[in-house]
Amino acid sequence: MSDLTLVDAQSIVNAALAKGGELGLKPIAVAVLDAGGQLKAFARQDAPAILRADIAIGKAYGALAVGQGTRWLNRTALERPHFLVGLSGVSDGKIIPVIGGVLIKTESGRVIGAVGVSGDTSENDEVCGIAGIEAAGFVADPGA
Amino acid sequence: MSDLTLVDAQSIVNAALAKGGELGLKPIAVAVLDAGGQLKAFARQDAPAILRADIAIGKAYGALAVGQGTRWLNRTALERPHFLVGLSGVSDGKIIPVIGGVLIKTESGRVIGAVGVSGDTSENDEVCGIAGIEAAGFVADPGA
Amino acid sequence: MSDLTLVDAQSIVNAALAKGGELGLKPIAVAVLDAGGQLKAFARQDAPAILRADIAIGKAYGALAVGQGTRWLNRTALERPHFLVGLSGVSDGKIIPVIGGVLIKTESGRVIGAVGVSGDTSENDEVCGIAGIEAAGFVADPGA
Amino acid sequence: MSDLTLVDAQSIVNAALAKGGELGLKPIAVAVLDAGGQLKAFARQDAPAILRADIAIGKAYGALAVGQGTRWLNRTALERPHFLVGLSGVSDGKIIPVIGGVLIKTESGRVIGAVGVSGDTSENDEVCGIAGIEAAGFVADPGA
Repeated sequence: MSDLTLVDAQSIVNAALAKGGELGLKPIAVAVLDAGGQLKAFARQDAPAILRADIAIGKAYGALAVGQGTRWLNRTALERPHFLVGLSGVSDGKIIPVIGGVLIKTESGRVIGAVGVSGDTSENDEVCGIAGIEAAGFVADPGA
Repeated sequence: MSDLTLVDAQSIVNAALAKGGELGLKPIAVAVLDAGGQLKAFARQDAPAILRADIAIGKAYGALAVGQGTRWLNRTALERPHFLVGLSGVSDGKIIPVIGGVLIKTESGRVIGAVGVSGDTSENDEVCGIAGIEAAGFVADPGA
Repeated sequence: MSDLTLVDAQSIVNAALAKGGELGLKPIAVAVLDAGGQLKAFARQDAPAILRADIAIGKAYGALAVGQGTRWLNRTALERPHFLVGLSGVSDGKIIPVIGGVLIKTESGRVIGAVGVSGDTSENDEVCGIAGIEAAGFVADPGA
Repeated sequence: MSDLTLVDAQSIVNAALAKGGELGLKPIAVAVLDAGGQLKAFARQDAPAILRADIAIGKAYGALAVGQGTRWLNRTALERPHFLVGLSGVSDGKIIPVIGGVLIKTESGRVIGAVGVSGDTSENDEVCGIAGIEAAGFVADPGA
């Protein structure tokens, strides 16, 4: 019951894409990973940018890596860039330490996955991620 | 007009999942990549197997890598295993040379992407991939 | 309640080491990974073999990768070596496809992690892994 | 006599975890590596953060990499960030250059391994690492 299902993950993706459309954002990519960091659902709107998927996935992975939304990584990267060099290394380069990676939590605070969004500004990407998580009935944690 | 849209890619994913359900297969993962090898849409049904996404993506990538459905890679791997070792190397290990990676072609024969499916037997995975491509109005090429 | 705790993981490690001692095996290493493939507990008995930890972890990771104990990977590797080349690639070389990687399941069949053991023969390694899992009150699935 | 035994390594892990509990820290992970940089013992307390093991191991590895506790790497990283980029590269990305990686020395000053701790603040992580080493009767060197 506490695992992220495909139905949940697809609801999050669709609601995040809808939010982007509502706000008139640039085409975005939305990745949903389970708590173990594995891809569960993904969609990328039509636009030419060949690493868009990797960036979206990397934001979600970064949030899970340290158990905090990527606002924390983004801030830490500015304060202690060498930590991010290290973290990038031990993760085999899988982390995008930028705003837009949001933890998916249950009401009770359990982390069941993360969403990563990429395509518009980082702040707008994050708005879409949060909207997707909340539309699916979960609690969004973008970090601080 | 000849590029794979997100709408197309999601149609393929959903029809492939539906085919798996219709046949009573094990939970599957379905990945759709565009002609450049970048992830466009993805869904993974609920089951514990942490590399399922990588395997599905790797089959689609393998098909695009050589411009043929992965039946060709699967056969070639048996006849010339050293070629697959080399191909795995130059692709940074991104290829799964196994049945279940199917090219998405237009009526005119243009390759616009590939589908990779993983979760049941390779042959059943392929059936789902072909069903998804055809349901979306494209031509499926599983290789030979 | 259904996640693998550190207490569980340490029980498994200790019981597996005890089994090795009881059987008079060579020094072994025992790794316990959670369902997401992350290391939870580990111990390596005293012996000079610098990749022992990587091998033990790689067996457990291999079992989780495909959702089956590594007897399945070991057999598949003999029948379809190219699949293993591919799997090794997409996992960034993290898989040891050899007997001795055993899934940890609950009574209800849910996979909550895996144990990998290395140091003696593969079959003896597996005996220790199974003993560890059962001593901690879980169901061991070595694959088939 | 001067090699790190499993009994020693497990004593260090357990005493470090106990220190974390005594201080009321967040869940931590504790890794003990031998002088050759290979994992000897490891435990990760229950918390969702999927790279916790890699970070703890990376701190210990970093200490061994340069023969100094990671206070030295942390300081050097601030003064000469390019050195850390290089070090991360030649180590295949295995180093976390952050406080919390502590060398394990004998009374005579011989390095027999290192401890890496991750989970709370870097300074608190280091306190646990030092406590673990001293409880096991060794000399802790956190670098300077």
